[in-house]
Amino acid sequence: MSFKKIAVFGVGLIGGSFALALKRQSAVAEVVGVGRRRETLEQAVRLGLIDRIASDVADAVNGADLILLAAPVAQTGALLEAIAPHLQPGTVMTDAGSTKSDVVAVARAVLGDKIEQFVPGHPIAGREQNGPEAALPDLYVGKKVILTPLQENPSALVENVASAWKQCGAIIHELTAQEHDAVFAAVSHLPHLLAYALVDDIAARPNAERLFQYAASGFRDFTRIAGSSPEMWRDIALANRPALLAELDAYLVQVTEMRDLLDKRDGTALEALFGRAQSARQAWIAAIEAAEQQRPYEQGGD
Amino acid sequence: MSFKKIAVFGVGLIGGSFALALKRQSAVAEVVGVGRRRETLEQAVRLGLIDRIASDVADAVNGADLILLAAPVAQTGALLEAIAPHLQPGTVMTDAGSTKSDVVAVARAVLGDKIEQFVPGHPIAGREQNGPEAALPDLYVGKKVILTPLQENPSALVENVASAWKQCGAIIHELTAQEHDAVFAAVSHLPHLLAYALVDDIAARPNAERLFQYAASGFRDFTRIAGSSPEMWRDIALANRPALLAELDAYLVQVTEMRDLLDKRDGTALEALFGRAQSARQAWIAAIEAAEQQRPYEQGGD
Repeated sequence: MSFKKIAVFGVGLIGGSFALALKRQSAVAEVVGVGRRRETLEQAVRLGLIDRIASDVADAVNGADLILLAAPVAQTGALLEAIAPHLQPGTVMTDAGSTKSDVVAVARAVLGDKIEQFVPGHPIAGREQNGPEAALPDLYVGKKVILTPLQENPSALVENVASAWKQCGAIIHELTAQEHDAVFAAVSHLPHLLAYALVDDIAARPNAERLFQYAASGFRDFTRIAGSSPEMWRDIALANRPALLAELDAYLVQVTEMRDLLDKRDGTALEALFGRAQSARQAWIAAIEAAEQQRPYEQGGD
Repeated sequence: MSFKKIAVFGVGLIGGSFALALKRQSAVAEVVGVGRRRETLEQAVRLGLIDRIASDVADAVNGADLILLAAPVAQTGALLEAIAPHLQPGTVMTDAGSTKSDVVAVARAVLGDKIEQFVPGHPIAGREQNGPEAALPDLYVGKKVILTPLQENPSALVENVASAWKQCGAIIHELTAQEHDAVFAAVSHLPHLLAYALVDDIAARPNAERLFQYAASGFRDFTRIAGSSPEMWRDIALANRPALLAELDAYLVQVTEMRDLLDKRDGTALEALFGRAQSARQAWIAAIEAAEQQRPYEQGGD
């Protein structure tokens, strides 16, 4: 389908790439942008990510088929409060937040009956750079976008959101918000916290300089995600606190058991554990590589 | 200096690259190779890594200026026992093991008075591939080689080992064996065990397939080292057990404290921890990049 008007709140990497991809596909007649900083919005216009800057929220929302919230997650409640009074029947809203249960809770509290017009989402794509100048038309090509539809969402509205992401080249997956948060606590949020913990542990020592001097490529890759934004990861950790606490507890048990194997000099059990992990990772990498070869387009971006 | 004869025990990536680099620099007149598998040795000859295959240990050791032990660490004791009866005054032995205290203990037990001729070492270089065909003449260019000389080592013998590695393009560092093992427990052995633990933790779950399905680039980098050889890492973990247990205990404390901050919803303290880690990692990466710009040669290999 094609859209006559899309409003994007937050025109950085995520929102800007979404808008740019749809414009390149001629899937939308007009994209209007909303943001806190005038300079960023003007840059988004110059880069061709959006067609114009909305004069206010009412102007942005009026007549829009689809609204994407791509501002920092902490602003979600305030944005929904500003949007709600102007929201017309038939407009669907979605978001791009890394956690979903908390977004759903905020949306329910703010939107009341209009919750049926909010379809929560999470595109699994990113780059190290941020801001409008980092936006790419092919950021989402071959990438997963997870939608966590609510019971209240009419299927036609869910389909509209899915259609927009598909036209960006993305592959749509559906999970419940709770499933989403449990999955990402395990495979994303936990590793981020573990990497931060290791670097902070080492940096706090009297001989930190010597330790870093001998750290090599294994340490570099293991800790790459400890270069991520502290504010963003604080928000994600707090937003996904119950699932993340469960993951941290499970991991502490696992590492304690491994430590006890080493303490007992149980080389056989350690080798078995390492071997299971190696096999699982090799199978996972093989599956990724097979999937990449089936992608419909060339991959761009991250 | 140049060497008239070097004997390499184990002609794979590490030993083969050492031999090849010295031959390319015309730093050695003859390299003889020793190994368990005839086929590997013949391949090393074909690839020009070694000049000839030794007919036996006595033939390898006789007249050698320098002997490098580059076989799996578990063979160190047996190799030293085979070499010791043939060892002549003036010949220096070194090794390439990832742990040093255990190698020193074995060497002292086997060599007796001849311990003065053994200068322990650890080149910090590797590739994902192994075997003679993975050997590169520039594997060690710009890389650190750590020597952990013993009180008994005459400085001339230490200098001979250092000279060989320098002619491979490496940068020599000296630590005690205990310092070496404490440093690498923190920045290498601990992250390996943590990565194995995470992958095994996830692989063991009933919903492992779904979890791996949504794992992305952060997870891939964090767990890259969980693709390493289970046998090799079992041996390293057992060899460096005391230092590694201390690291595991410190990390368990650190993660438990971080978990408690999350449990208490202490976003300020979490953000501070993440921020310290981010800053420390950024400073480390900047230092690495500055050092790489000062390298004497182009970097090759890993």
